[in-house]
Amino acid sequence: MLNRVRSAVAHLVSSGGAPPPRPKSPDLPNAPLAQTAAPPEAPRSPPARAGSAAPAKTVEARASFSRPTFLQLSPRGLRRADDHAGRAVQSPPDTGRRLPWSTGYAEVINAGKSRHNEDQACCEVVYVEGRRSVSGAPREPSQGQGLCFYYWGLFDGHAGGGAAEMASRLLHRHIREQLKDLVEILQDPSPPPLCLPSTPGAPGSSDSSHLVGPQSCWSSQKEVTHESLVVGAIENAFQFMDEQMARERHGHQVEGGCCALVVVYLLGKVYVANAGDSRAIIVRNGEIIPMSREFTPETERQRLQLLGFLKPELLGGEFTHLEFPRRIQPKELGQRMLYRDQNMTGWAYKKIELEDLRFPLVCGEGKKARVMATIGVTRGLGDHNLKVCSSTLPIKPFLSCFPEVQVYDLTQYEHCPDDVLVLGTDGLWDVTSDWEVAATVDRVLSAYEPNDASRYTALAQALVLGARGIPRDRGWRLPNNKLGSGDDISVFVIPLGGPGSYS
Amino acid sequence: MLNRVRSAVAHLVSSGGAPPPRPKSPDLPNAPLAQTAAPPEAPRSPPARAGSAAPAKTVEARASFSRPTFLQLSPRGLRRADDHAGRAVQSPPDTGRRLPWSTGYAEVINAGKSRHNEDQACCEVVYVEGRRSVSGAPREPSQGQGLCFYYWGLFDGHAGGGAAEMASRLLHRHIREQLKDLVEILQDPSPPPLCLPSTPGAPGSSDSSHLVGPQSCWSSQKEVTHESLVVGAIENAFQFMDEQMARERHGHQVEGGCCALVVVYLLGKVYVANAGDSRAIIVRNGEIIPMSREFTPETERQRLQLLGFLKPELLGGEFTHLEFPRRIQPKELGQRMLYRDQNMTGWAYKKIELEDLRFPLVCGEGKKARVMATIGVTRGLGDHNLKVCSSTLPIKPFLSCFPEVQVYDLTQYEHCPDDVLVLGTDGLWDVTSDWEVAATVDRVLSAYEPNDASRYTALAQALVLGARGIPRDRGWRLPNNKLGSGDDISVFVIPLGGPGSYS
Repeated sequence: MLNRVRSAVAHLVSSGGAPPPRPKSPDLPNAPLAQTAAPPEAPRSPPARAGSAAPAKTVEARASFSRPTFLQLSPRGLRRADDHAGRAVQSPPDTGRRLPWSTGYAEVINAGKSRHNEDQACCEVVYVEGRRSVSGAPREPSQGQGLCFYYWGLFDGHAGGGAAEMASRLLHRHIREQLKDLVEILQDPSPPPLCLPSTPGAPGSSDSSHLVGPQSCWSSQKEVTHESLVVGAIENAFQFMDEQMARERHGHQVEGGCCALVVVYLLGKVYVANAGDSRAIIVRNGEIIPMSREFTPETERQRLQLLGFLKPELLGGEFTHLEFPRRIQPKELGQRMLYRDQNMTGWAYKKIELEDLRFPLVCGEGKKARVMATIGVTRGLGDHNLKVCSSTLPIKPFLSCFPEVQVYDLTQYEHCPDDVLVLGTDGLWDVTSDWEVAATVDRVLSAYEPNDASRYTALAQALVLGARGIPRDRGWRLPNNKLGSGDDISVFVIPLGGPGSYS
Repeated sequence: MLNRVRSAVAHLVSSGGAPPPRPKSPDLPNAPLAQTAAPPEAPRSPPARAGSAAPAKTVEARASFSRPTFLQLSPRGLRRADDHAGRAVQSPPDTGRRLPWSTGYAEVINAGKSRHNEDQACCEVVYVEGRRSVSGAPREPSQGQGLCFYYWGLFDGHAGGGAAEMASRLLHRHIREQLKDLVEILQDPSPPPLCLPSTPGAPGSSDSSHLVGPQSCWSSQKEVTHESLVVGAIENAFQFMDEQMARERHGHQVEGGCCALVVVYLLGKVYVANAGDSRAIIVRNGEIIPMSREFTPETERQRLQLLGFLKPELLGGEFTHLEFPRRIQPKELGQRMLYRDQNMTGWAYKKIELEDLRFPLVCGEGKKARVMATIGVTRGLGDHNLKVCSSTLPIKPFLSCFPEVQVYDLTQYEHCPDDVLVLGTDGLWDVTSDWEVAATVDRVLSAYEPNDASRYTALAQALVLGARGIPRDRGWRLPNNKLGSGDDISVFVIPLGGPGSYS
């Protein structure tokens, strides 16, 4: 995430840029999560090799940085992936087990802005067993089977790689945990019960005929859909992940923060959850369907200003919640300057008073926009230690860990093998438009047979290469001679109508 | 605004439904506004007759309720407009001076839900003189001419008609006041200056070459458009209007509140500002272009919940900021109920605790959705005295006076005489879809010659009649036998390509 945390890196990362100590127990501390055994049905990523992201018990032996397990990198491959000069594009080996649905993946390290690649990725099939079976009670036929969901996650770290790595290992487990209560409800076509008995496992707890309580003083009760339960589960999983980072940040030095872009496929629907400035689009029959919005100081200006207005103590007397088009000079006191308040989308003039000389909570434009002159994204996980530069003022209260979730019903359209969902960190989108991505989708996929499962990896590689460019004239340059992205770049290509093993 | 303020009416309106005392000085108290003489260039509405809304000096002789001046109602006509049984549709007389642009207008009183029609309307051409000329200094050639804007406003009152009437008389003056600083800036094609000298009238104050101060620590300064200045002026005018209502509510008994839907045409662009649940759509060549969004407890749930979460003292220990799909019974304590927090769009289960038994800040669905079990709209003007029923808890902190402003560039499309902007209070939209309105536009306008200026009034009447229905089976019924709207209904039809005198 190039240029997204100005000065925060120096403020937070330990001396000399040395890699921070690794967490001693990076697995979920919550007992239910830690106890849950891997389900035998769920395909797993290949076992970790030396240097790649390792399961909990071997963490302490891990190298100084990690890449996604599914890349299956050897120690030499890992060094190559960590080389800022060569910037070799990494993908899962053709020889290994393919990612679910023949998903394509490619990544490349940044051009030197941080010591390691701070992006992380995860692709898993996750089995969810209903919570009551966990209690050890014998499974009743009426309790039905567990659920499987497919999961893809991109995590773009800043101010250190710890948060992104932790999220890549644990966020899907938080989602699983949130879905445990819903296993039977989601498989029952009747509307979800509004109220459940207190004891999980009590008979009929997910039977909608057991609605508790009489009709209230409201004339009707709200209808809640199955889909909105999954959305709520994903939202709460993000919050629990963030809370875990907060709890463990001292002991384990979960440094920095990360954007999180996550896809969950469950029961025919694709849920795209985004917190940060990564982006997801569907390219379907050449058409572009945006599946996420970016959350930046510009797109979230009014939310940030409102918080500063309602809770001025969060501004520490150093910032003003008002926005100005440029910094005000002390000699301009008494003159009239353009401003925007939290309720305004337009601009107006106001007389400059003493407190307007404070630095604006939100300033700058485009990729240079910042909250408190420090961070350029406004949603994500972690950042619990993030302070305003040369200050003890925490920035976290202004950041939201909640994603926006968009839902796409895969059953409403007959997808062909060229229809894909593309996920990319901002390294891709900073230099590539949606339309350029769609053109690359068309160009690359048409060069492969529809049933060639390697075509999606080739596409992911083409997208990463196209955003990185080639070294020329003292920089990485695109064919049009503009600068390529010097940021970490990570891309998933998820086929929507390919040979995927739909559950 | 039928059913939109449950119990608040009884709580607020003076005993027996008698009309409240009228304001003694309903004109703007701000000296600059009051002093500004009517410009000779601006067409004016016909002089007020007995019983209609009158200018400030004749207010005390006014009848107990008023209708828009441009209706030119006689005392007999006024009684007819106030008759709940007949519900005669009112329009400006064919014989009088037409409204600007040959705008069509029609209204009808409610079926008995409030004593008078609580909707109000205003249509004016407003001249804005630059502020410096007000000082009496001789006009310099460089200062240019003043500006004219065309103005239409619909105000849907609740819990009394005072706020709607005050807004209909004064909001456009607040807009004029806000535009005074911008008269020359808006006529200068160069970008607006970011900073102005403190003294209005000093040479060069609106010359963009007089940017004050050096480049700041920001690498660039924001570009601010002329359009965003007009948007900011309208936004601030709404706020000043609301503040005036707050100041004068004790002396003048500005009872109740109102939704405000306002259109400003200025320098080729149409600005549609909406605060409440009225609606504006453009029907252009049969296509529908939405020009506003409704602000209700449902559409603003997350804003309301966030405020209740950040400022729990506003909930007075009586409400919870969490949303539940129905009221919780005390016996359900300890069970798990579906809920939504302020950050969530999905639903999840939570264990019911004692404080969840409080009434939810937001509850109900559709037209029955309420804030604090009281009010069904979340933006508008007034409501400074509004309290939760049987409580002293004020609701105003949860209501926003700020409109959302949408801009439509009239010069980007060649409009034909059948292209119209339709404004309606919720009495229209509760029973009429956008498509039904578009069909009526087509049906009525095609029955008139394109240059027949009465066609837009005929269209407004048809829309009001279509929403009201005819008396049958103990109610007002539509042709499909469903109930028509029993609410006040007011409609403007503004032709976009007609014979209007574009400035």
